[in-house]
Formats: sequence, structure tokens, C-alpha cells
Amino acid sequence: MIATVSGEQFVYRPIGIIRTENTIPDKTPIQPVYAADREGRAEIFSEVVEGLRDIEKFSHLYLIYHFHRAGEPRLIVQPFLEDVEHGIFATRAPVRPNAIGFSVVELIRREGATLYFRGADILDGTPLLDIKPYIARFDHIALSRNGWQDGVDEQTAKRKGGRKE
Amino acid sequence: MIATVSGEQFVYRPIGIIRTENTIPDKTPIQPVYAADREGRAEIFSEVVEGLRDIEKFSHLYLIYHFHRAGEPRLIVQPFLEDVEHGIFATRAPVRPNAIGFSVVELIRREGATLYFRGADILDGTPLLDIKPYIARFDHIALSRNGWQDGVDEQTAKRKGGRKE
Repeated sequence: MIATVSGEQFVYRPIGIIRTENTIPDKTPIQPVYAADREGRAEIFSEVVEGLRDIEKFSHLYLIYHFHRAGEPRLIVQPFLEDVEHGIFATRAPVRPNAIGFSVVELIRREGATLYFRGADILDGTPLLDIKPYIARFDHIALSRNGWQDGVDEQTAKRKGGRKE
Repeated sequence: MIATVSGEQFVYRPIGIIRTENTIPDKTPIQPVYAADREGRAEIFSEVVEGLRDIEKFSHLYLIYHFHRAGEPRLIVQPFLEDVEHGIFATRAPVRPNAIGFSVVELIRREGATLYFRGADILDGTPLLDIKPYIARFDHIALSRNGWQDGVDEQTAKRKGGRKE
């Protein structure tokens, strides 16, 4: 872990575990948009399952998780979609100072403590830290400048992002 | 903290601190969309500042932080915009099992280790855990069902969300 001047630290514990068919990092899609056909499920621990009430009425959820198989943090990385180096905070790469990831997935259905979803770009066994509903009035940014990502054409992104080549 | 069956835990350290004019929780807008006129800044610690390279080319960023003034976690909450109780994971309330929050803010400019942004719905002094670029091709969900939020009319949301009443 990269040390920081602040001595503060925060301890989080999993609220559940994510199950997918993705067991090999190099074969795992890099984003839900490239994993539309991959289903997965989040198994929520019984101690917090009450917190799911009404979640089935949302079509999309942010799953926030710990990148449990990320390597050592790096500050400069070459992202998967481009052959140019960028700062880690200008990318979604997992080797971050704090290995927090999120995916916006499509909720298919809830069965008790289990959420079935589409858009599984997450490795099997990933510890889940939080779930937040996707809410269009908060999260839908109509116009954005997307840095180096604007230079990656859609076809290349789709081909590489799904890791099917 | 609500105990979970898993003994696993993850320790995160701040990568910086968020500075805003919001010092009173009850007067703080609940989302960036209701804080379009409020500016703030993220002061990134020198140890990780190299990770900001190229971030200034993105117009919007996810700031991921620790809700440092959230109370004890609760599984059922009454959200700010509606007089009905919901599970915590169907809301954005801060009293979560893991007190992780995020805001999609508009980056105004970068000056060295400081990011100036618009949409400051964050309390002053909030510890920053991560920054990720908002990337339309990943994060822009064109159509979503938004659960109980779809029942809150836009006028009420704007009035209450900005906490100006």
C-alpha cells in the first residue's frame, strides 16, 4: 500500500460476495457495457439482508467492491483500451492506492438474499462492500468530456473491452 | 458497525481531503445535482499526486469518500426525499454498513495537487479514498427504472435536495 501522510484509516467488512463465471482476470470484461450477456449474482450476508428492502424496484445498481485480486498499487498505468500511460485516477484500472471498484449492473431479479444481475465484469469471489441504487436524476450526466477515452473508437473499445479476441 | 459472518476486512487510507463550505450536515445538499452552484476542492496528498496525470481532460469525476460524520449504521432508513422507509441499499443515505459515499462532480480545473470542482454536496473535511473518471460509454445508463425515486416529483426533489427551505 502506498503510504500517505494521514495516519487515518478506515476498516470495511464485506456485506456479501459476488459470484460470476469470471475466474481468469485476463478473460474478464473490463466494464458491464462489454459484459451485457454475462450474468452474475450477489449473495448478501444474512446480517444485512434487511437493507435490501425495495431494491428490486430499481433496474440498475452500483455494486461497490474490493478488487481482491488487484496487484500492488501503481500511480501510472497503461490502461487496457489505449497504449498510452495515464495517472491511475484518470483510469478505472484496479491497481489503485485503495482497491475500490464499482460496476453499474442491471438487476434481473431478487430472490431473498440473492441479487441476479446482468453485466458481470467482476471476478468470481469478489467481496461486496456496498450497493447503491442507480438514480437517473443524480447519476445521468448528459454531456461529458471523457479525456483519453474520447480518443478510443467504439469498435476498438467493444472488441477489447469484452476480451473476446 | 454491523457484524458480518465473514471475518475479512479491508483497510483503506485517505488519498486526500475534501474542502467545501458545507460544515453543517443538515444544510448540506444531498447530491451534486442540487449543489450546482457550490464549489469545492479536493487536496490530494503528495504521495499519490502523480496518479492525477491527465485527469484534467475529464469534465466529470467520481469522488469516492468516507462519510466521516455518518452516525451508526442502520438497515432501514427514511430517505430525505420521501416519507417512506426503505432498505439502506435502496437509498443513498450515509448510515451504511460501510460508510462509503461518492459524488459525481464537475471538474473546473486542476492546480497541482488540488482539484477544483462544482457540485459540492460533501461535508468539509471528508476523507477522500479514490477518484475515478466519469466515462460516458461506461456510466451513462440511457434508460433506468428508479424505484421509489420515480415517485418523487422533480420540483420537490429540487427544493428538498438543495436543503434551502
